[in-house]
Amino acid sequence: MTHISQMLDSHPRSTNLTGDRQALLDCIDACFDCAQSCTSCADACLGEQEHVPHLVRCIRLNLDCADICEVTGRVLLRQTETDVTVLRAQLEACAAACRACGDECQRHAEGMGMEHCRVCAESYRRCAEACEKLLASLAA
Amino acid sequence: MTHISQMLDSHPRSTNLTGDRQALLDCIDACFDCAQSCTSCADACLGEQEHVPHLVRCIRLNLDCADICEVTGRVLLRQTETDVTVLRAQLEACAAACRACGDECQRHAEGMGMEHCRVCAESYRRCAEACEKLLASLAA
Amino acid sequence: MTHISQMLDSHPRSTNLTGDRQALLDCIDACFDCAQSCTSCADACLGEQEHVPHLVRCIRLNLDCADICEVTGRVLLRQTETDVTVLRAQLEACAAACRACGDECQRHAEGMGMEHCRVCAESYRRCAEACEKLLASLAA
Amino acid sequence: MTHISQMLDSHPRSTNLTGDRQALLDCIDACFDCAQSCTSCADACLGEQEHVPHLVRCIRLNLDCADICEVTGRVLLRQTETDVTVLRAQLEACAAACRACGDECQRHAEGMGMEHCRVCAESYRRCAEACEKLLASLAA
Repeated sequence: MTHISQMLDSHPRSTNLTGDRQALLDCIDACFDCAQSCTSCADACLGEQEHVPHLVRCIRLNLDCADICEVTGRVLLRQTETDVTVLRAQLEACAAACRACGDECQRHAEGMGMEHCRVCAESYRRCAEACEKLLASLAA
Repeated sequence: MTHISQMLDSHPRSTNLTGDRQALLDCIDACFDCAQSCTSCADACLGEQEHVPHLVRCIRLNLDCADICEVTGRVLLRQTETDVTVLRAQLEACAAACRACGDECQRHAEGMGMEHCRVCAESYRRCAEACEKLLASLAA
Repeated sequence: MTHISQMLDSHPRSTNLTGDRQALLDCIDACFDCAQSCTSCADACLGEQEHVPHLVRCIRLNLDCADICEVTGRVLLRQTETDVTVLRAQLEACAAACRACGDECQRHAEGMGMEHCRVCAESYRRCAEACEKLLASLAA
Repeated sequence: MTHISQMLDSHPRSTNLTGDRQALLDCIDACFDCAQSCTSCADACLGEQEHVPHLVRCIRLNLDCADICEVTGRVLLRQTETDVTVLRAQLEACAAACRACGDECQRHAEGMGMEHCRVCAESYRRCAEACEKLLASLAA
């Protein structure tokens, strides 16, 4: 139960939020949720003893994605004097990262039965979709 | 509804989590929630037109706290080879930051009727308490 | 005098660095330098007393750019299992952010004689060019 | 060649910087340099093929330290309305992290001849010392 929705309701520019309000809220939430899943999945992969060498690509992409999703969430939270060109470019980078990393996690969820990769792949999918939906609402 | 709990359940070292499990989960959640409230409150303050000069200290402390809470949440999420000395020092920095910034926000919530500062002060209080509770569980 | 060059020389995949080696080094350096200038410029603007309301857009874009440049620098530093699609998208977001924020800073450097905005605009220009140069070397 | 020194010279509160000016500059520089070395060392360790399982603790501590040093550098860069209690707590966390991670890197530099760990240990030492020196100057 985060405070994001209350924060945006009390924002002095709340009548003027970027894109569709629900798409914005979902995307902020998905970005931060995904950043947390990535940080945790990189760390869980690192704890997998002798399997670690097979998870190197997964760890690396998780680290990138944790950073990218977090920053995208921060840019989205800011609603004062938004530059839509910057926002759009960052959303596109975030969607690309989530697609690439989600595919990698999904592979380990299936091939090695890694449950943390399965949960993380779910976060990735949700975040990629939320970014794409918000991008579409910005274009409209 | 974040995936943190599922991620920690599927972590290869899940039987060996830092401190009390519930205190750990609450603290991770409070850190990221607070980081988001701080980022949003700094931005909302920045959108307050002619009031901005009175909110400079609030904005600055919010920016510090957004960074500090986020990093504390990341350190807590990592459960492979935790160094308790590092964790403890970072939790203490986070609690100190949340106390200082929470007082500042509370002042603007009361004095200027700033609703975003009131919500943010709530996030700060919860995060400071969660850090202190986890610190106490580590000491036990 | 940072350690980046030594770190990349001793990297186990140093024969296989992303793009042109010098363009990569310059871009990493420019991203972190720019992230620092942005953080400092946002803070300096915030310290400008009664001028702060005129600097709101500059502060906001500086905050976005600090986050975006830092993350781009981190993604570039990582040379194990690089995903070029992700890297390229993040470099494009970084160049777009640096162009937008650099224009804003340049305006305050000229119109209000803000020296910190002038220095920061220099960092932005260098970072945008370094990203574009590395992008070109990746395409080659 | 970063722009930090020029940025602080042009800061509207430049006559009022935190602690000793040279200690402050050195500490900011050391924090960001160390954050970059940690990010790179974690990634280089991850690229060490069959040695990765022996480097798990090093990678994890490097990730913590990259985050902690970066945030400490950001807090230090901000010179408007500094809260010295928050700053001091964050500097202490940073010094603790650099000491713990530096010891770990030093061990791999010696035991496994890892050159990236040797360079990174140097960054850690410098950063821990810079934090401690600035802390001493704040106390004076």
